[in-house]
Amino acid sequence: MHRYGQPTSVIYNSIGVIKTPYVGKAPYQPVETGSGEFYLEIDEPYVEGLKGLDSFSYIYVLYFIDRVTGPARMTVTPPWSDGRAVGLFASRSPERPNPIGLSIVRLKKIIGNRVYTSGLDVFDNTPLLDIKPYIKDLDSKPDADYGWVEDADENQHLALHIQGIPHEH
Amino acid sequence: MHRYGQPTSVIYNSIGVIKTPYVGKAPYQPVETGSGEFYLEIDEPYVEGLKGLDSFSYIYVLYFIDRVTGPARMTVTPPWSDGRAVGLFASRSPERPNPIGLSIVRLKKIIGNRVYTSGLDVFDNTPLLDIKPYIKDLDSKPDADYGWVEDADENQHLALHIQGIPHEH
Repeated sequence: MHRYGQPTSVIYNSIGVIKTPYVGKAPYQPVETGSGEFYLEIDEPYVEGLKGLDSFSYIYVLYFIDRVTGPARMTVTPPWSDGRAVGLFASRSPERPNPIGLSIVRLKKIIGNRVYTSGLDVFDNTPLLDIKPYIKDLDSKPDADYGWVEDADENQHLALHIQGIPHEH
Repeated sequence: MHRYGQPTSVIYNSIGVIKTPYVGKAPYQPVETGSGEFYLEIDEPYVEGLKGLDSFSYIYVLYFIDRVTGPARMTVTPPWSDGRAVGLFASRSPERPNPIGLSIVRLKKIIGNRVYTSGLDVFDNTPLLDIKPYIKDLDSKPDADYGWVEDADENQHLALHIQGIPHEH
């Protein structure tokens, strides 16, 4: 139990690894049409937990962002913010106090201990922490918005990133 | 970097606490119309990171599920599964190898270090790990589905839970 100003620590251990084609650099966000193979390789003790997962078209993938290069700063300037500084928690920056990555991907198929997905925006061999089903009514919010991104001149650029449409930077 | 069968450990420290009216028991999923006050109380070093967050209508809240009572079993029988056993990762059970909670809530207002939200399905004083903006195109998947939940006779029951509509159990 957390009390104000007295942090609670927790240790998590990876349950597998995320395999992607990205070794030197990775995209900012999932690219559904990303070329190459993307899959979650689940360690043996957890494979039984995949039963029934393939009945969902989308899943959440949670992981430890283990190759962060910088410290967490409370104000950041995201690539599509048009130079504007925003608070860290209003961004998806990987440099966070607790580097937990969250991506929503399309589930393609499960073969043995491998969960094949659409493009994931992480480096190869990223430690996998959890998988959760994405359930339509619970997780899809058609009345959501774009927050500060809407105001940035660069929001068309973000849209291209999100949709995975090739474009010049 | 995770290698097959060799888990990577990571330590996270809470950045604040989630305040809810739930002391003895909590709902299964967020109830948007939950009565009582719900807010995230952010520790001082991180308050600056909230700048601009209030431009989003929905946010992700990630937390340490610190009051899990049982061990993680790889097969579970969720309350609305109609008695059917499904894999842990095909469920939202709190008893997971890595108990990381994920809830999407509506952001109401931010006052000082408090982020007021719609109903959260967690116990009072749950350790907060991260906040991320929910961005429409990135996170809302209108073509998502209900997976195995669709087949269960109890799926109407789940719908009531999701929509926060009072009903008899």
